[in-house]
Amino acid sequence: MNVPFTHFYGSCLALAFAGYKDGILVDKQEEFQVLALHHPLGFSCRVSILLLMADKRKRATAENDSDEDDNGEQPMEAPRKQAQAALAFRKRLKPDNAILATVRKIADSAKSYKPQTQSLADLNLPNACKEVVDLSCASVMAEIEKTIINIARSILGGNGFGYSVPSRSSANQLYVQELDRIVLKDKASFRPFANMASVRKTTITTRILQLVHQLCKKQIHVTKRDLFYTDVKLFQEQGQSDSVLDDVSCMLGCTRSSLNVVASEKGVVVGRLVFVEDGDRIDCTKMGVGGKAIPPNIDKVKDMESDALFILLVEKDAAFMRLAEDRFYNRFPCVIITAKGQPDVATRLFLKKMKTDLKLPVLGLVDSDPYGLKILSVYMSGSKNMSYDSSNLTTPDIKWLGVRPSDLNKYKIPEQCRLPMTDQDIKTGKDLLEEDFIKKDPNWHKELEVMVKTKEKAEIQALSSFGFQYLSEVYLPMKLQERDWI
Amino acid sequence: MNVPFTHFYGSCLALAFAGYKDGILVDKQEEFQVLALHHPLGFSCRVSILLLMADKRKRATAENDSDEDDNGEQPMEAPRKQAQAALAFRKRLKPDNAILATVRKIADSAKSYKPQTQSLADLNLPNACKEVVDLSCASVMAEIEKTIINIARSILGGNGFGYSVPSRSSANQLYVQELDRIVLKDKASFRPFANMASVRKTTITTRILQLVHQLCKKQIHVTKRDLFYTDVKLFQEQGQSDSVLDDVSCMLGCTRSSLNVVASEKGVVVGRLVFVEDGDRIDCTKMGVGGKAIPPNIDKVKDMESDALFILLVEKDAAFMRLAEDRFYNRFPCVIITAKGQPDVATRLFLKKMKTDLKLPVLGLVDSDPYGLKILSVYMSGSKNMSYDSSNLTTPDIKWLGVRPSDLNKYKIPEQCRLPMTDQDIKTGKDLLEEDFIKKDPNWHKELEVMVKTKEKAEIQALSSFGFQYLSEVYLPMKLQERDWI
Repeated sequence: MNVPFTHFYGSCLALAFAGYKDGILVDKQEEFQVLALHHPLGFSCRVSILLLMADKRKRATAENDSDEDDNGEQPMEAPRKQAQAALAFRKRLKPDNAILATVRKIADSAKSYKPQTQSLADLNLPNACKEVVDLSCASVMAEIEKTIINIARSILGGNGFGYSVPSRSSANQLYVQELDRIVLKDKASFRPFANMASVRKTTITTRILQLVHQLCKKQIHVTKRDLFYTDVKLFQEQGQSDSVLDDVSCMLGCTRSSLNVVASEKGVVVGRLVFVEDGDRIDCTKMGVGGKAIPPNIDKVKDMESDALFILLVEKDAAFMRLAEDRFYNRFPCVIITAKGQPDVATRLFLKKMKTDLKLPVLGLVDSDPYGLKILSVYMSGSKNMSYDSSNLTTPDIKWLGVRPSDLNKYKIPEQCRLPMTDQDIKTGKDLLEEDFIKKDPNWHKELEVMVKTKEKAEIQALSSFGFQYLSEVYLPMKLQERDWI
Repeated sequence: MNVPFTHFYGSCLALAFAGYKDGILVDKQEEFQVLALHHPLGFSCRVSILLLMADKRKRATAENDSDEDDNGEQPMEAPRKQAQAALAFRKRLKPDNAILATVRKIADSAKSYKPQTQSLADLNLPNACKEVVDLSCASVMAEIEKTIINIARSILGGNGFGYSVPSRSSANQLYVQELDRIVLKDKASFRPFANMASVRKTTITTRILQLVHQLCKKQIHVTKRDLFYTDVKLFQEQGQSDSVLDDVSCMLGCTRSSLNVVASEKGVVVGRLVFVEDGDRIDCTKMGVGGKAIPPNIDKVKDMESDALFILLVEKDAAFMRLAEDRFYNRFPCVIITAKGQPDVATRLFLKKMKTDLKLPVLGLVDSDPYGLKILSVYMSGSKNMSYDSSNLTTPDIKWLGVRPSDLNKYKIPEQCRLPMTDQDIKTGKDLLEEDFIKKDPNWHKELEVMVKTKEKAEIQALSSFGFQYLSEVYLPMKLQERDWI
């Protein structure tokens, strides 16, 4: 029962000692702090001496209670090693301006970044592929009207009524390495009205077209849920209006956000970024510690400006909070953004826009587990069920800063802060090894292999074992100094 | 198959008609819009005429396909009735300044609101109760040092080492009507170190005290997760550090947020509110449509100012988005806040602070189901597992604006937008009827009875069935005009 033993005597005997030493106890708060709290390592060593003069009876009790064997020295070892490791890295840190110089280099090189100009057409792939683009409200309305008019033509021509709907099944999806995106192949199915099997879907499609036309006309945004409730009797369940909504955006060849139907936002952004949202000027350096909620409708975001050197993409809001409270972006000019877990559409669009408008390198900070890697992949290559929309949602060329499997040893993450991977984790990891976006980058592949081999994972928070601010004061500066990303 | 029939002919035959009328088809987009999209009702009627001249063959097909019986007129009825209902309310709306005058009255009366001054002591209840208060970092440190010193005393006095920890079990909880809050009774248990059963917990408690002392010293905030990772070997699983953390805040008699351990924020706020967050001046009228993310640490929020007449507490972010985009707060000066579902601590603290500092009436807009009511209750009376903290988290005197069970008929929410309550819903509803915070308000009790009797529930979004902006343009203004809250 080493650890309990340590901590118990750590807090109490060190204090007792302080008390004995001067014969007074209660007024020794100052010294008590020094001994028991400020230098956890210092008092750990002190404790080993104290143990000798410690009240035998109580020690005996403690040992009888202990289910582990207790040897006086060992308990001090672990924490000391840990603190020494932390210290070692802290010592190796250069002054900030030296680190900044390094970062500036990569920032400049990123300035040359051109948003993907290569179009599907340029690639003449075996099978023609479908991508959707952002359209203005006016264009969406025009597209809808064209569609309906063609249908009327077909009716009047006696050819009946139906839609040709692109298939969104994974069988119809393709990863295009040149674009580093998932796109839809050209498979489409006809959805006739005069057919028992498809009459409802055809009708729903028509109704959705009508509702979207209204939204674009009024230039307002609604959620999928709102849309569903406008005609519950027809849609019956939200799943039906949702899936048809995706069909419609494929049919019209525009992004879902162009249809003015948005997901609810959950992302936040903070740091060296200024932009105009629906006419309001937002300065993200003046957003306190909570940050600015990322708006659900990206088309209201304009005029992005920034003097940041990079964008820090964070998986979890705990890490975001730490960096925001420490105002990390003032020490190293950057924009910090998180979707609080699984990336939502609004956050992905926002990141994409930052990358395109500001031409900044994007550094990803995620947990060292397959899930963290999956999250990076969603930002970079899109998610399967929105594949048709990938070109507008994906941010290519995100650097994997950490926490990488190799970091666990490199930064001496204590054993007890590493978690064993579950069978599911390992399976997911092995599947990822086969994914194109991993395969194409040997470094990523190597890191993932390490993870699957060691069967160890770790969260960003594992860095807290070196102190709460280790992330912002040592780990990240060191990463920047060594340009340690892949 | 009424609805499909309507919509199908709606979009297509009306168009066909337009085409026939002038002999041209494609260039008739303008007229097509008028017929098929702008006036859904108008064209629905037009359609009934069109049906007569409609192509017989296709109509036949449609009827063969239909699994329901189809009579030409009925399909038009439902939508027309619906639109008429919507229109009726719109007509009854007075000019905004008249409505504002009404609202101003309640706003003024709320100015007299005094934050709960009555303390537990004043009530001399049968059993002494425990409440916790907000403490400054300095006070928390002092409390911790006092605790440890007393323990050292006890050790040196040969009385061993242990903590007296207040029980947080529901058996030890009490709803105090006078305070309208849940509080802890005085039951406490002793947690000795020299005892197999409690040695680990005692040790963890000591460690947590040490970590919290560090946090207060450094004046930084961390999440429960961070805290756990500072000593995984000791805590073993987060559940253990979490529960001890709550014990500690009871022991020290301070709120969990005073311990500088925060939950991750998920709430957003927008509208007529200005405040200072960690030195930054935040103007919530200039937060676009996404709003300002509510900070995880309330103690960084200062100097709230507002010219709002009320606070609109919204359950769902969909409704929040609608109101933010329509800039509802500019038409009716208010602050709009949501926790996006289950209230998190940060949002509850923020609401409480607004109510206390700004003395504004709080109007609640939640789904008309037991869950929505539960959410209001958490804001008002606190949640069981944080009961010891309730006085600092709860905002008394929230008005239930809607959507109330009686609204469903009053506002003629269409049948198909009402959902049948599940058995679980009904059970929850019946349980709520027994809860003190419902019992004490006959009006609330009556409404809940209606819900349980009709077995019908409805979401805020159900109002979208009258048009996407019905919520912001008709429903809420009407509610304000009629002071229709309880």
